[in-house]
Amino acid sequence: MNQRVFSGMRPTGQLHLGHLAGALTNWIKLQDGYDCFYSIVDWHALMSDYADSSKIESNCREVLIDWLSSGLDPEKCVIFVQSHVPQHAELHLALSMVTPLGWLQRCPTYKEQIINIQNKDLSNYAFLGYPVLMAADILLYKAGIVPVGEDQSAHLEIAREMVRRFNGFFGEVLVEPQIMLTPTPKVPGTDGKKMSKSYGNSINLADSPEDVWNKLRTMVTDPAREKRTDPGDPEKCPVWDIHKVFNNSDSEKAEIAEGCRTAGIGCVDCKKKLKVHVERVMNPIREKRAYYEKNPDLLGDILREGAVKAGAVARKTMDEVVAALGFVRRG
Amino acid sequence: MNQRVFSGMRPTGQLHLGHLAGALTNWIKLQDGYDCFYSIVDWHALMSDYADSSKIESNCREVLIDWLSSGLDPEKCVIFVQSHVPQHAELHLALSMVTPLGWLQRCPTYKEQIINIQNKDLSNYAFLGYPVLMAADILLYKAGIVPVGEDQSAHLEIAREMVRRFNGFFGEVLVEPQIMLTPTPKVPGTDGKKMSKSYGNSINLADSPEDVWNKLRTMVTDPAREKRTDPGDPEKCPVWDIHKVFNNSDSEKAEIAEGCRTAGIGCVDCKKKLKVHVERVMNPIREKRAYYEKNPDLLGDILREGAVKAGAVARKTMDEVVAALGFVRRG
Repeated sequence: MNQRVFSGMRPTGQLHLGHLAGALTNWIKLQDGYDCFYSIVDWHALMSDYADSSKIESNCREVLIDWLSSGLDPEKCVIFVQSHVPQHAELHLALSMVTPLGWLQRCPTYKEQIINIQNKDLSNYAFLGYPVLMAADILLYKAGIVPVGEDQSAHLEIAREMVRRFNGFFGEVLVEPQIMLTPTPKVPGTDGKKMSKSYGNSINLADSPEDVWNKLRTMVTDPAREKRTDPGDPEKCPVWDIHKVFNNSDSEKAEIAEGCRTAGIGCVDCKKKLKVHVERVMNPIREKRAYYEKNPDLLGDILREGAVKAGAVARKTMDEVVAALGFVRRG
Repeated sequence: MNQRVFSGMRPTGQLHLGHLAGALTNWIKLQDGYDCFYSIVDWHALMSDYADSSKIESNCREVLIDWLSSGLDPEKCVIFVQSHVPQHAELHLALSMVTPLGWLQRCPTYKEQIINIQNKDLSNYAFLGYPVLMAADILLYKAGIVPVGEDQSAHLEIAREMVRRFNGFFGEVLVEPQIMLTPTPKVPGTDGKKMSKSYGNSINLADSPEDVWNKLRTMVTDPAREKRTDPGDPEKCPVWDIHKVFNNSDSEKAEIAEGCRTAGIGCVDCKKKLKVHVERVMNPIREKRAYYEKNPDLLGDILREGAVKAGAVARKTMDEVVAALGFVRRG
């Protein structure tokens, strides 16, 4: 297994604590020991949002700032925008030649999303080919390791099958990636459901301390604990789930859980303690965010440099792919 | 209507008299009055031939030599290989976002080919998207005019609908191409069916005079004219169809038709007369072919220069497309 890592995020807006606890924390760890390529996958965002793409540029900027502020370091990893490297589109086209339609039509996430997402028209050619583009993203960098959540594992399996099929036809050019399942701690949103931008229940990395406190303050707790004097059950409380992720003091957590069960502390006390830990995590992020917002030119420089580094690897792979296909050599 | 012309051919091997009488003669005329882009569309060839792509490179070379030998002039038109301009793949990806699956699934040529072509596996993602790639080819050059045969008119209509849909979402970026129906005179093959490489009945532009005569000599004629003394009916004779295309002497044609009907001349006499006209057309083609075969470096130079010229236009269009999509500006 090689030490090249690829992963990407769709630019759909500001990132939140769920992204931080899930993907980002893991990505930041990986950049120290691996050769990491992290991409803001704007073509993927366009697939579902083509009817109004006016926010893609600002969303890319938000994601980039959130990444940098959280600790992704362009000196340690390659950070780039997918559409800045044209070889993604070229490998997508090449892979589409060897991708049986049935693989895409039977893909469980495709069937789920066609049924579940009702407010967007997904019956376009690109959306059916989502796994083809995702495979191109990964295979272009010959990544051996792809840190993704369980929900992406079917797509990764298709990418692996594509490698076997492509190499079977054209020779050993592409590399089969291995999935690295990202531990995704449960981070509920303010309403207790999974934290998600689309549910409007998220605590964003860009939120001010006031915003964070307002969201925590009004966050749902164990619904059985109606009055201050009622004992609660932490295991039924979404605030407790967030303590488990961001509170780094085991003794304090033990006190809180005990206090909740005995009505020794109220929900507001519990939330105030959580606020301290969330702010401990978020303050350095905010500082870096302020720095990048004051130096917007840096963002352009980082993406330019990322595109150059990613492009060099991508071109090399595409040259090999085109030679394997038997095309007339370019230039 | 602008004066930009785009057309392409799949590199499936040597071209024949049918290509010459159909597309090529028309392309050669157009290069004098229009801004013509002619592409050897290798990605399209891969769609159906991915299982064995070993001939794509030599087929591209054959097509290029046939084009040049027939009279396409790289000083007058842009001649290039599709895969040498990566923007074809990028615009294909962009267009795929706004292409409803139903347009592709209902495309009559798609349904026909899936049913009729049994010796190749066409159930891949790319083949369903054939019209998307063809649209990208045309729209990348903002071609106002596309000279194609009737069989491609459904694809061109899809390209026009894509322009309306894309521009509706993202602004007036792409240009609706107009179809210029190429007059395609009937050129039967040696067995009387439509001349086609896949039927093995073709007279190729690269054939030697001996090969041409052997093919003409054994070509089927009016089946009712079994003996030399039987009168024939030119309208039932495929050799006569070829006379109509390549014999430029009306008086000779009148004599032949009369001679056939009255058994005044035999089929071999008729074929010998046809040979003279076919050779008159083919000899200059052969001379140029010999020149290019002796100067293979020229072929590389022509394709390199073509890719530079086509690439300049393609990059400009893709820059506009990416800006219209609202992506982060590159570089």
